[in-house]
Amino acid sequence: MAERMFKVTFQPEGKSVFVSDGTTIYEAGGEAGIIFKSECGGHGICGSCVVNIMKGDYKQMGSEKFLPEEEINKDSVLACRANIKSDISVEIPISSRLFKLKILTKGIEYKLELNPDIKKIFVNVPKPSLEDQRSDIDRLIDSIKNHIKNPIIQLDVLKILPDKLRKGKFKITVVIEENEIIDIESEDQSDRNYGIAFDIGTTTVVGYLLDLKTGKQLAVSSRTNPQTSCGDDVITRINYANTKKDGLNNLQKQIVSCINDIIIELVNKANIDKKNVYKITTTGNTTMNHLFLGLDPINIAMNPYVGVVRFNMNVRSENLGVNINRYGKVCTMPNIAGFVGGDTVAVILASGMHKSKEIKFAIDIGTNGELVMGNKDRLISCSTAAGPAFEGARIVFGMRASNGAIDIVKIKKNEVEINTIENSKAIGICGTGLIDAVAELRKNGIINDSGKMLKKEELPEYIPDFLKERIVKNEKYGTSFILVDKNNTRTGKDILLTQKDVRETQLAKGAMYAGYNILKKILGIKDEDITEIFIAGAFGNYIRKTQAKCIGLLPDISTEKIKFIGNAAGAGAKMVLLTKELKQEACEISKNTEYIELTVRKDFQDEFMDAMYFPTCKTCT
Amino acid sequence: MAERMFKVTFQPEGKSVFVSDGTTIYEAGGEAGIIFKSECGGHGICGSCVVNIMKGDYKQMGSEKFLPEEEINKDSVLACRANIKSDISVEIPISSRLFKLKILTKGIEYKLELNPDIKKIFVNVPKPSLEDQRSDIDRLIDSIKNHIKNPIIQLDVLKILPDKLRKGKFKITVVIEENEIIDIESEDQSDRNYGIAFDIGTTTVVGYLLDLKTGKQLAVSSRTNPQTSCGDDVITRINYANTKKDGLNNLQKQIVSCINDIIIELVNKANIDKKNVYKITTTGNTTMNHLFLGLDPINIAMNPYVGVVRFNMNVRSENLGVNINRYGKVCTMPNIAGFVGGDTVAVILASGMHKSKEIKFAIDIGTNGELVMGNKDRLISCSTAAGPAFEGARIVFGMRASNGAIDIVKIKKNEVEINTIENSKAIGICGTGLIDAVAELRKNGIINDSGKMLKKEELPEYIPDFLKERIVKNEKYGTSFILVDKNNTRTGKDILLTQKDVRETQLAKGAMYAGYNILKKILGIKDEDITEIFIAGAFGNYIRKTQAKCIGLLPDISTEKIKFIGNAAGAGAKMVLLTKELKQEACEISKNTEYIELTVRKDFQDEFMDAMYFPTCKTCT
Repeated sequence: MAERMFKVTFQPEGKSVFVSDGTTIYEAGGEAGIIFKSECGGHGICGSCVVNIMKGDYKQMGSEKFLPEEEINKDSVLACRANIKSDISVEIPISSRLFKLKILTKGIEYKLELNPDIKKIFVNVPKPSLEDQRSDIDRLIDSIKNHIKNPIIQLDVLKILPDKLRKGKFKITVVIEENEIIDIESEDQSDRNYGIAFDIGTTTVVGYLLDLKTGKQLAVSSRTNPQTSCGDDVITRINYANTKKDGLNNLQKQIVSCINDIIIELVNKANIDKKNVYKITTTGNTTMNHLFLGLDPINIAMNPYVGVVRFNMNVRSENLGVNINRYGKVCTMPNIAGFVGGDTVAVILASGMHKSKEIKFAIDIGTNGELVMGNKDRLISCSTAAGPAFEGARIVFGMRASNGAIDIVKIKKNEVEINTIENSKAIGICGTGLIDAVAELRKNGIINDSGKMLKKEELPEYIPDFLKERIVKNEKYGTSFILVDKNNTRTGKDILLTQKDVRETQLAKGAMYAGYNILKKILGIKDEDITEIFIAGAFGNYIRKTQAKCIGLLPDISTEKIKFIGNAAGAGAKMVLLTKELKQEACEISKNTEYIELTVRKDFQDEFMDAMYFPTCKTCT
Repeated sequence: MAERMFKVTFQPEGKSVFVSDGTTIYEAGGEAGIIFKSECGGHGICGSCVVNIMKGDYKQMGSEKFLPEEEINKDSVLACRANIKSDISVEIPISSRLFKLKILTKGIEYKLELNPDIKKIFVNVPKPSLEDQRSDIDRLIDSIKNHIKNPIIQLDVLKILPDKLRKGKFKITVVIEENEIIDIESEDQSDRNYGIAFDIGTTTVVGYLLDLKTGKQLAVSSRTNPQTSCGDDVITRINYANTKKDGLNNLQKQIVSCINDIIIELVNKANIDKKNVYKITTTGNTTMNHLFLGLDPINIAMNPYVGVVRFNMNVRSENLGVNINRYGKVCTMPNIAGFVGGDTVAVILASGMHKSKEIKFAIDIGTNGELVMGNKDRLISCSTAAGPAFEGARIVFGMRASNGAIDIVKIKKNEVEINTIENSKAIGICGTGLIDAVAELRKNGIINDSGKMLKKEELPEYIPDFLKERIVKNEKYGTSFILVDKNNTRTGKDILLTQKDVRETQLAKGAMYAGYNILKKILGIKDEDITEIFIAGAFGNYIRKTQAKCIGLLPDISTEKIKFIGNAAGAGAKMVLLTKELKQEACEISKNTEYIELTVRKDFQDEFMDAMYFPTCKTCT
């Protein structure tokens, strides 16, 4: 006798598969490419894969443990406990589905499961009657008990409930955040559910608008952090907060206003209503985090450098003045220490190093350089006051990576090849150009191991004339190398790489490399034990690995092991917005990652001095 | 060899006892009359009985499971795991003690254990250093981890932390409410911890100021509920809220302002600072509860009579405009249904009927009469629109129980004995006087079983003349009995008990008695199954049991079984303020007590008609 086959149709997508008699709905879903939410893998233990049978026969066993009898009578069953007995039509609610998501950030892909802690549920609440006199909120909570147990509700949300219920004829949409009912809307508005992830950088603030029902990114918008007007780096901002009248208040207002501007831009771009934005997540360094929350940052800047808060805060948006849904929430990424913030937590989260057996190393190069090393058993972080050189600060002709900045320098056989951003006439030199310039002069013997730029007369004979001619003496900054002569610059002046610039580069890379060596020492490992190096941060993306290794900014480790992970801070903020389990992971990372204060270690000065030397690069002649 | 005895001195009370070698500190405490907090009864399982050894030798085993090593090294141990090995001095912190408390309300005593959910902890927080760079809040939370695990903190409280820590040189007092840090104070202020319990009656608001460290009541203050100006009873107030512009808002403002006035009076009386009042609890009927919280009460008054909320709300005082500590909390007693409120929950809690094996019956006679019947397995409640007659409403010469009200009526052999409140000249008749008058006329054959007041000519012969002479015919209200003649009244008019008043009395007592019978019917029990009747409410206190039984207001049950439990609503509000476990019990009572809507029961009209008859009283001639 031929095996009986049944047609199973899944709604709302209308996808059908044919399966044999007795196959479970869970298995049929698998064949149709639909992945159920399930912690137990379809063994009837977790109760997550609830489906509604719309038409057809089935036999179920064991749903009673998870579903009330009246639900089962209405043909709600666990997919893994229901055997198909005829052609059948099955609706799979969004709450029973698992979405595999990909976040793209500067070409880097992160995979995650869509499970935001903001959920919207459309529910048909039974009307009160003389036989059913439950209070309004009791009847609502009972109606959503399959989605959330014992939710809490704030008084102001409770106040709107009786009216919303009756105006909507007891059909309403409930907005849930974690274990709280945060808003109530008339009728079915469950399709409009948005959140925004913010990366609050010292210099740039970026917002990503996400659809929390699909995980899709709908719009991106960025602005310069307006606090820049009160200081370029975190220390000057902390001083501003501490010394100016209303300083902290002003800085907080500035960042909140910037965030509100970005919100308006994002919702306009995507053509949605900002009342349907229920949550924002933010990441940033510890100082940005404190200034945004209005917490006094003064002790971050003073020995022993402690912040007010490490863990994540979940605050009503109105308490911060952030304009989203009136009852919306703002969740900050947790920090690690005063100088290792939520952005580093995001880097760890995005790199996955906290779950790895092998030792990994991550470096986020911004104004400061934050380093993390370790694996799932132990993670250690430190911060080095490293970055400003690579952002153009303290470099004589330094500038940010914008139009007219020299970003590539290559010394060829007969010429010095220069590239500028957008091929404009050169104005100055940015971080990658600086690394290139120093590396190329190293390789060509113009800068020696100790970082000295040789004078024309000190240069070995083999140096070609077209290079020798570029060596000049600068009154203020010592021996210098002409990168672009005045005839080809926008300023009408020569653009030089000076001896001072080389020293600044040594200080910056030396601090980072010393940090790297100390982390290795604490973990008791060697270079070869590190299986991957992750480079995060906008600047990191553009570094050329061999050049960075040449000047000793990165350790001499096989180039394939070095991976760029893009704007991991932004990716981290998105990840915790889209997946509540990742928020939990971020909290664990924050709690468990150790912080080492380099400056108090006795070995730091020695390591630092050593690390300022340039390595004897294999490619150097 | 004689047994070695050691002297054990307990601090701070300085009490000493002598015990034999090896006795545990827990046992020694018992001998000194000090009761430890302990869920396990001194078996080393719960970790609650932590003490500090100040001087002397001891041997401890098993404290490691509950205390960090550094604590044990500082001589913190579990009292039940430490054997005394020399003369010894032991400090028992307040957190390890159990206080047995008694609350007195109108002479009724309730026993409970002092364990408020507001706790103040003085703590010496380790100062930050380069070796210990924990954030301010992390170091605080770690410092109090023996008292509370993973507390939450609101952003505005977090904001004051860095300054409080440093101004107090890292010695601060933390105020805890449940699992939240609600305030931070410099230095040791742990001795100042107060709360206020409010009974928000429709007519009268009473506040009780309690010391949460001792459970002692420091002051009482009461005021007329200012909402009275917008209506005498709950229905007129609901109408006011519903029909007047800003009606709900006005009513809320009135009650909040009344509560704030009482708070000022209380703190002045006790000479304390209101910033040290961290919590208020409130009880009241469902409408008072809604008006105080600003929740729309309209649906309570309209079929099918549902409120917005049943469960208790815990709200920041500033959100309601209540002036206590800036971060203080207001906790409302949960309700049962639209017409059975937190005051009834309090009655159940105070009577203990929810924990009883035997069947009990409780009745709270106010403007409405709330009835509860049952035991620990099942409790049923209902409400009857019963009361106004007993508060003087709808009674021709009715008045509240104040100066000049007839409160006792007794018919003696040759005279009618009348008592008025404060022995003033009579103005009218209050509830107890009404019951007396009707009962006495029943006993003397002037009112028959059906409630008819016999005319002079209908009276049997044996009725003495001094009574016959008092029967008059009133044009408007029918046959009437002169209680006080016009020569002896303040009004210069006869004060009458009219036929109409008897009918009102029948309606009121009939409704309550019908409710009583229906509750019995649902539980399937008889009068004799009820082991106790509790009468709550200010009015209830003054009822004379035999008179109430005579007119059928109370069932014909042995008088010893009838107990007055005073202002149980106020007692309930105090109990939940002083003992967090009782708050939990109140929530369970609210959730588990069934509510019966009498008016929809088919048998109600029949029961009501039957119950309006007067019983054939045993004492009647």
